[in-house]
Amino acid sequence: MPESSPLVPVRDVPPNAEIHPGELEHPVTPTPAFFVRCNFPVPSIDPAEHRIRIGGAVERAFVVSVEELRAMELRTVEVTTECAGNGRIGMQPPAPGVPWDDRAVSTAVWTGVPLRLLLERAGVSDDAVEVRFDGADGGELAEAGRFVSYARSLPLEKALDPDTLVALEMNGEPIPAEHGAPTRLIVPGWYGMASVKWLTGIELVTEPFQGWFQRDRYVYDPDTGEAPTPVTSMRVRSIIHRPLEGSTVKPGTLHVRGWAWSGDGSITKVEVALGGGDQWVEAALESHTTSPYAWVGWSCSLEVRTPGRHLLRSRAWDSAGERQPDRPPWNRLGYGQNAVRTIAFEVH
Amino acid sequence: MPESSPLVPVRDVPPNAEIHPGELEHPVTPTPAFFVRCNFPVPSIDPAEHRIRIGGAVERAFVVSVEELRAMELRTVEVTTECAGNGRIGMQPPAPGVPWDDRAVSTAVWTGVPLRLLLERAGVSDDAVEVRFDGADGGELAEAGRFVSYARSLPLEKALDPDTLVALEMNGEPIPAEHGAPTRLIVPGWYGMASVKWLTGIELVTEPFQGWFQRDRYVYDPDTGEAPTPVTSMRVRSIIHRPLEGSTVKPGTLHVRGWAWSGDGSITKVEVALGGGDQWVEAALESHTTSPYAWVGWSCSLEVRTPGRHLLRSRAWDSAGERQPDRPPWNRLGYGQNAVRTIAFEVH
Repeated sequence: MPESSPLVPVRDVPPNAEIHPGELEHPVTPTPAFFVRCNFPVPSIDPAEHRIRIGGAVERAFVVSVEELRAMELRTVEVTTECAGNGRIGMQPPAPGVPWDDRAVSTAVWTGVPLRLLLERAGVSDDAVEVRFDGADGGELAEAGRFVSYARSLPLEKALDPDTLVALEMNGEPIPAEHGAPTRLIVPGWYGMASVKWLTGIELVTEPFQGWFQRDRYVYDPDTGEAPTPVTSMRVRSIIHRPLEGSTVKPGTLHVRGWAWSGDGSITKVEVALGGGDQWVEAALESHTTSPYAWVGWSCSLEVRTPGRHLLRSRAWDSAGERQPDRPPWNRLGYGQNAVRTIAFEVH
Repeated sequence: MPESSPLVPVRDVPPNAEIHPGELEHPVTPTPAFFVRCNFPVPSIDPAEHRIRIGGAVERAFVVSVEELRAMELRTVEVTTECAGNGRIGMQPPAPGVPWDDRAVSTAVWTGVPLRLLLERAGVSDDAVEVRFDGADGGELAEAGRFVSYARSLPLEKALDPDTLVALEMNGEPIPAEHGAPTRLIVPGWYGMASVKWLTGIELVTEPFQGWFQRDRYVYDPDTGEAPTPVTSMRVRSIIHRPLEGSTVKPGTLHVRGWAWSGDGSITKVEVALGGGDQWVEAALESHTTSPYAWVGWSCSLEVRTPGRHLLRSRAWDSAGERQPDRPPWNRLGYGQNAVRTIAFEVH
């Protein structure tokens, strides 16, 4: 990608890229800057031919076309989505997997059919416990030693949430190929692995789903012999986008800005620390949207007079009472790394 | 400092700077690239007028000029010196103090008078327990709330080590001002705070020294209420200088090179890991010197074929059986941070 790309590549094949630091200032991430996470090559799907099958433990299995979905009652939700592996590079020791820095997170406005409407039309059987979502992507996985298709499940309650969408549009346009065209699931508040791209199948299942991306990957493995548990909602986190890591600012008043989000409630407080130690200053929260699923802006002003290198941190609290931890919470595969990040910048 | 400076400034006043990554390849650091650590403004001392006073619990106190020192039996030792705060930026959470990355470490060839000769000439009293060294540097310290002169002590045993020097030359030239001209202590194997610069006084003391830089700074404070203990020898550590953090290399065979050192013995093994997880490869050790106090070179070759971002780590063992820890060992002031460092580089 050229120098001016709004994305920073992490893996070339399949495409995996983080939002460029310079694009973090936008409340709604411009579509070309939205982070890209692909487990397999991007499927090429003809929207005119595309169908989603709704079946399994339902009264009336059916298939639905993109055209039919477009004719249904659509809903629009602004959602911050973060990769479950975001921040993996900061694990100590680093975990195996795609080495995401901390910018595998973006915000978009998604428009689509509430999944609930499709489930109601199908009639969910009493014995259904989860909904499995099948993507069109798949391939040979060395770690699995076999061909794996992408699939993930949701508990019924989250599947029936009115804001869980089968999305057709991203920021008012058809969804680009790398983001799941023509139809993807959007699960507000959950890490990105739940928002299955290139959605082709919705299956009501009567036992918890045991697929590769449900039980072997996207799980918290405590590495103690205890059973791993599937990754679900986004842990409370914040990111600084002004000043940027490695940037140079003039001595004087420093305007610090960033975002904070949580999948388990609203952001209640953000604090900022200049330098090491335990001196924290409360930032002002500045919501740009009424969506409970979008990150919240925050800012504060600090005086920085000493020329040279300085450190800066932010930490967020959510309405569930959780705060970002000082150190990365350990799990073998490096998911949910929401520890306070220290950035360095220069004053000159 | 200009872009081409062999140093990366961390604080401008007083001067504090790390060796530039591009200068790390030298077994003996070029003098202009040697890291600079100053607690106070650099004293300006006329070598012709300079005297060191040896006194306290001795039989014969005396003063000695630079000229007299030069006429004594000189010894030359190659020594790797690391700042006790090196790596502080990697503490989680970051500690207060100068935010050193991991390049406050350098190697030089020092020539000077073994301290032992001066102590023998003075005749150490039986009740002496430590030797205090006074630097000419000092100033008002906000944290201390008073004027503090730089001073540090050594136990008698280390002071009497034949390789502990009152140095007159650095890399075959008179010591530059910022490195302690005209006379500085060199304490091989210990963190830099022990190698008192601008040395003006050597005092035998009968009680453990309680000065600011002995009891309030350069101490391991466990932050648990237990008493802090003075920082002494350098913990085992390694650094990668090829590839450099953030650099881009071509797919294929990657030649990895670096240094390893310990103040508590020789380096016995270095391992390298590509990517996250626990796959380590043993590196070959390549000593360039017979000095037991200089860092040891190491190298290995790895195959890296996948374009994109990759992680690299090294970890060293010493003959005392110590290994670099996976996570920074916590202490309140951020000293002795010798954890394995993860660097990221690009393959394209």
